[in-house]
Amino acid sequence: MLETLNVVGARMPLPEAYEKATGRATYCSTMRLPGMLVGKVLRSPHPHARVAKVDYSKAESLPGVAAVVSGQDVKSKVYTKNVMTYQLPGGEIQDMTLFGDRVRYKGDEVAAVAAVDEPTARRALSLIEVEYEVLPAVFTVDDAIAEDAPVIHDFAPDNTPVSAVPTFCYGDAAKAFEESAVVAGGWYTTSKQIQAGMESAACVADYQHGKLTVWSQSQLPHMAKRMLAHVLDLPEADVRVIQPYAGAGFGAGCDLNAEPIAAVLAMKAGAPVQVWYSRDEDFNNRLTREHVAKVHMRVGLAADGTPKALEAHYWGDAGSYMCKTASGCGVALASNITPYEWEAMDQKLSATYTNHVGGGAMRGFGGMQSSFVRETIVDEAIAQLGMDPIEWRMKHHRNVGGLGWFPSARITSCALEECLTIGAERIGWKEKWNKPQSGTKRRGVGVACMAWLSGAQPMLLEHSNATLKFNADGSATLLVSPGRVGQGVEGALAQIAAEVLTIPYERINVIAGDTDITGFDIGTHASRGVYCIGKAVLAAATEAKEQFLQRAAEKLGLSNDTLVLEDGVISSTADQNCFVTLEEIALGLIYGFEHDCNQIVAHATVEPEDFAPPWQAGFAEVEVDIETGVVEVVKWITVHDIGRAINPSTVEGQLEGATCQGMGFALFEDPVISLSDGYMLTDGFDKYKIMSSVDLPDHEAILVEMGDPSGPFGAKSVGEAGLFLQAPAIANAIYDAVGIRLRDLPMTPERVLAAIQAKEAGV
Amino acid sequence: MLETLNVVGARMPLPEAYEKATGRATYCSTMRLPGMLVGKVLRSPHPHARVAKVDYSKAESLPGVAAVVSGQDVKSKVYTKNVMTYQLPGGEIQDMTLFGDRVRYKGDEVAAVAAVDEPTARRALSLIEVEYEVLPAVFTVDDAIAEDAPVIHDFAPDNTPVSAVPTFCYGDAAKAFEESAVVAGGWYTTSKQIQAGMESAACVADYQHGKLTVWSQSQLPHMAKRMLAHVLDLPEADVRVIQPYAGAGFGAGCDLNAEPIAAVLAMKAGAPVQVWYSRDEDFNNRLTREHVAKVHMRVGLAADGTPKALEAHYWGDAGSYMCKTASGCGVALASNITPYEWEAMDQKLSATYTNHVGGGAMRGFGGMQSSFVRETIVDEAIAQLGMDPIEWRMKHHRNVGGLGWFPSARITSCALEECLTIGAERIGWKEKWNKPQSGTKRRGVGVACMAWLSGAQPMLLEHSNATLKFNADGSATLLVSPGRVGQGVEGALAQIAAEVLTIPYERINVIAGDTDITGFDIGTHASRGVYCIGKAVLAAATEAKEQFLQRAAEKLGLSNDTLVLEDGVISSTADQNCFVTLEEIALGLIYGFEHDCNQIVAHATVEPEDFAPPWQAGFAEVEVDIETGVVEVVKWITVHDIGRAINPSTVEGQLEGATCQGMGFALFEDPVISLSDGYMLTDGFDKYKIMSSVDLPDHEAILVEMGDPSGPFGAKSVGEAGLFLQAPAIANAIYDAVGIRLRDLPMTPERVLAAIQAKEAGV
Repeated sequence: MLETLNVVGARMPLPEAYEKATGRATYCSTMRLPGMLVGKVLRSPHPHARVAKVDYSKAESLPGVAAVVSGQDVKSKVYTKNVMTYQLPGGEIQDMTLFGDRVRYKGDEVAAVAAVDEPTARRALSLIEVEYEVLPAVFTVDDAIAEDAPVIHDFAPDNTPVSAVPTFCYGDAAKAFEESAVVAGGWYTTSKQIQAGMESAACVADYQHGKLTVWSQSQLPHMAKRMLAHVLDLPEADVRVIQPYAGAGFGAGCDLNAEPIAAVLAMKAGAPVQVWYSRDEDFNNRLTREHVAKVHMRVGLAADGTPKALEAHYWGDAGSYMCKTASGCGVALASNITPYEWEAMDQKLSATYTNHVGGGAMRGFGGMQSSFVRETIVDEAIAQLGMDPIEWRMKHHRNVGGLGWFPSARITSCALEECLTIGAERIGWKEKWNKPQSGTKRRGVGVACMAWLSGAQPMLLEHSNATLKFNADGSATLLVSPGRVGQGVEGALAQIAAEVLTIPYERINVIAGDTDITGFDIGTHASRGVYCIGKAVLAAATEAKEQFLQRAAEKLGLSNDTLVLEDGVISSTADQNCFVTLEEIALGLIYGFEHDCNQIVAHATVEPEDFAPPWQAGFAEVEVDIETGVVEVVKWITVHDIGRAINPSTVEGQLEGATCQGMGFALFEDPVISLSDGYMLTDGFDKYKIMSSVDLPDHEAILVEMGDPSGPFGAKSVGEAGLFLQAPAIANAIYDAVGIRLRDLPMTPERVLAAIQAKEAGV
Repeated sequence: MLETLNVVGARMPLPEAYEKATGRATYCSTMRLPGMLVGKVLRSPHPHARVAKVDYSKAESLPGVAAVVSGQDVKSKVYTKNVMTYQLPGGEIQDMTLFGDRVRYKGDEVAAVAAVDEPTARRALSLIEVEYEVLPAVFTVDDAIAEDAPVIHDFAPDNTPVSAVPTFCYGDAAKAFEESAVVAGGWYTTSKQIQAGMESAACVADYQHGKLTVWSQSQLPHMAKRMLAHVLDLPEADVRVIQPYAGAGFGAGCDLNAEPIAAVLAMKAGAPVQVWYSRDEDFNNRLTREHVAKVHMRVGLAADGTPKALEAHYWGDAGSYMCKTASGCGVALASNITPYEWEAMDQKLSATYTNHVGGGAMRGFGGMQSSFVRETIVDEAIAQLGMDPIEWRMKHHRNVGGLGWFPSARITSCALEECLTIGAERIGWKEKWNKPQSGTKRRGVGVACMAWLSGAQPMLLEHSNATLKFNADGSATLLVSPGRVGQGVEGALAQIAAEVLTIPYERINVIAGDTDITGFDIGTHASRGVYCIGKAVLAAATEAKEQFLQRAAEKLGLSNDTLVLEDGVISSTADQNCFVTLEEIALGLIYGFEHDCNQIVAHATVEPEDFAPPWQAGFAEVEVDIETGVVEVVKWITVHDIGRAINPSTVEGQLEGATCQGMGFALFEDPVISLSDGYMLTDGFDKYKIMSSVDLPDHEAILVEMGDPSGPFGAKSVGEAGLFLQAPAIANAIYDAVGIRLRDLPMTPERVLAAIQAKEAGV
């Protein structure tokens, strides 16, 4: 059992809950600046073409139009919307230019206008005359790698700039497969998915006197700033990225959207410009979970169950620009490593260009494809050996000191066995698993496991800064820079600081969301907020505490090590009547009439080195209608090894929200792309159903708190962790119910029914 | 001659010039928040009364009214609008309560409303029913100290809580007067004056989820925050003071205006509230230059001119609440010390309550009254000895190491002799002074001198913080917190940082105006910005440079002391090919793939100890019409010992603007208070003329740059310095022209004519 703390571990409301619930929170889409113009983007009607000529003279002379921009207005710097490129040594492939002379998907950016209102902006778009030289286009990986396929980027004549690159391999896989008693696997496809935030893509840009301010939904504001400075050729000091509240992130904020366009419009118009995507524009032009096209995976187990080999090839469909496709496949491969003790692993990745919008980051990036494929194949192999899938997992998972995602990463803590034990008990595994079923509706239970990360160190750069600044009354301002996507991390960071300083939570005021005022931060992604930024806050608070102790020692005429801080009071361990409050010290230093002014300001930089994986077991009970193929999830249980829940309410909230997204991924979400032009057929919530909280089956989120030696107060991550296991656990439960194995997501009634019928037909 | 620097000394435009000139700058009065309400204050119609009952039920039920507040809604904390109280050891007299049960001037605050628009708010005010028990009132110091005068504050039964308190005295003044060959002096009165900013008092408050944000014109945002936290009983961390641009400060921003009222309205209404004074409300309720009611001063000189003694009694008219009246008189006394080497000084101050609004801070606080009275009396004594007033001043001013304003303050630099020499030459002193005049229009020249301060250390707390935060491209953000009143200090601070770091000015982005994001700062007043905050910036930039040098040394494998920083490049003094740029270091530390992440952030706290007085000589040539008493200023010259001009354009701008205010003070500005109810008769620009730039006579501002050893790059102050000498130099020039001595300001044609006629009549 972990020691009970005062502020850490308390159930706190989200700091922004009140403003959001009362409609007072401001978003990029709802903000209004004086004189603000409406920006609209002219998009290519062709999936692949050369832009021979753009004539916007008619649009420019339309009354109410303040600015029109196209390729002739901007220096064409090569860039990528993927601002995470700066996190990678060497960066990622940069293959875009703003308003370039070539369009590569239906919707690609050709020009843009800023006008006094939306009708005028739309009318202006219709007045822009563009001459296109249409080129042949391809929409699937298979077509793009065919011999005579059109070349989408000249530097990659085979459309596959990343081709079967070995990644995270060790041991002799061929030999390990030979020694295996059972081998399972094959080709798999997984769901694409839309982030589906309540707020579609939106941003506002304003340029005054050489300084650009961009209000953005970016989850990585400091790196968005750097990319904007790069694209627009400005010093970073002249670019300020501000985050109002965001109507969800889910990874959509890891890439730029219309920020560069809003910026060039604002620079030309001399007024603030808001670009706010319509819902269909958002579906068709924002980068979603499209990165993995297909997966080939095989695993081999020895007769006693020993994991021998895992072999995989993740093949990404990059769409028109590479963005995160290769790295998404890379994360999939990396996340295959940790759960189990394979004797050998042989993994590789490819990424191919096609003519649709392409993939970006989405919550559970890469891990969604790894967990579904791996956990169902492993389940299949275990079943062939006649073993209990829970017992097998209890025995063969990696453990503390074992291999993390990267060659140099070692697991710091693991509570998977506790997760499995608690979940098995709760779902009634013994009573329900592997029981004969009959009738139309058949029930089964399934399990799946995973180990995710708490920031991508030590492979990726995970740099965070935190500053604590004390007021004269001993209250403090905490300056940090997570991406603000509603995840509640700001409150958790305040809890960490308050715990160290032994002061009430309410006395820590968190300021975030503005690159000009906060220290550098990689932002919010890779489930890093509480762990990585939390470590920076912990370090800053500890440094502040040291400063207070030092000042108290001077004031009391004692040495530091004879002092103790409790409830905001520093006292002598020897004499309780000898004390000074933090408030007295802070006041004395700010209003320092003895000329010892020195406001207590503590700053910390961290770049964590440890690999602290949160572990998780997911349990599904399903009822499969063998006449319709409809799968009803009767019960869902997530048991999560959080290390320590800084704020249990928000941890549970993350897991419950993720359960919605994970079920959608498993059962029905999958945007449909037209094979005639690459455009999305399901471009609105009327055509693309997401699971809402009212659709959700009976579900539970259970936290296991054993502590992690490297995390702040023992905390590991939760951000993405809740949505990996629905697909594989439900698939495994379907197998338990009706004996079929599904290799393609989502598991729609059509697919389930077809598999049942094929099984009955003995196919 | 001072060494020429690269960025310091360059003529830079004001950073905010573009936004202000194009109308895009936002002010408290022009900002609009969604759902923002209009706040209006119900003011007492009586100069002195008990508030027996406030019934606002009718107002509250008026459609469109969101909140009404009066004494029953607020805990009555004793406070003062003078937030500078925190700068004084022990603080100043706190004698107000918000919506108290007693009103002490016509206009005192009784209640307030917040409504959807101004007509509704005004209508609601008219529906509030107040029962007053009217009390007798007094409007002058003489009436207030009369035996049967009504008591205005119960704790001060004689209305004079500060009574003849000796201040800044030394030597045996009685003996020194006995030894004097000439003694001059008597009773003097000086002009009151209105700050007359283009923007009247305005603020906006918003309260969400326990956090109060106030947009304020405060020149001391961090101390305004503390006072608001005190009045409203909130932790300081929950109060954020933001400064948009301000339509002038001139000291009006040293006191709170409607901020506490806007805050309680916002807290009750649950919506943002803007309170924006009408112009007459601004004239009648904002604290102006009213603090000194009358001055008695005498000086004695030995036969050879040696300054023997100065004796003074400054008597303040505090009005209804003490605010800055006692301290204004104190500053007057202090600023009498430095210019000349008196053998003995005997000074004291008193402050008396009366029933008008009272005095606050205004540019040239206290010094206006000291310089007019002292410089004309000294001129009179010198004339009695038949000496040249320039030669006398050249000989008898204090010098480096001599006494500053406070017992422990010593003068760090003095270029007064250069100022006098340059100005005398320029005005044509030898040709014009003391020349017989005849005819209707008679010309004369006059001179006056002063020594002001660069921050009020070491007596007052002058705590400033500066933080420099580097971007990956080597550009930097500078976080500082001067009051933002259009004075241009932010640009000068960027110049100081750029000079130290040897990078272009444009690569320093200054962020100010928000207490949540900046370190503590006493704010902008006492002419402290460039000197005090500049020292903090210099220290932070030097610390940053050290960090860069240290990193460069590690990178280049050399020791720090063999490295030199020039033009943003650190190179070996031994081998020019061995170098690294600041950008390379900053980039490497932010995107630190060798796991040495450590964004360069340099923070400095300063509380300067030195007394670095800027010296000044002012020269007037006037033409007096002896038939009308009209004084025409033919030529005005300010010669200012700035130490070093960081940005000569803004220094000259400060001096030229001040010349306008100083001439108005000298010649015609003087708000007229009714002796029947204490209300201002001149409550609008139609009745109260200020001097504009087109009214200004031929004038010059000349800078003397000899450097100060304690100032950043040798800089001393300019903020207030330009407006002290117009009144005494013009008075002395009038004496030179027509032989009269004026003891009352302003020097209106009526007074001048009366003095000429009295002289002619031999009175």
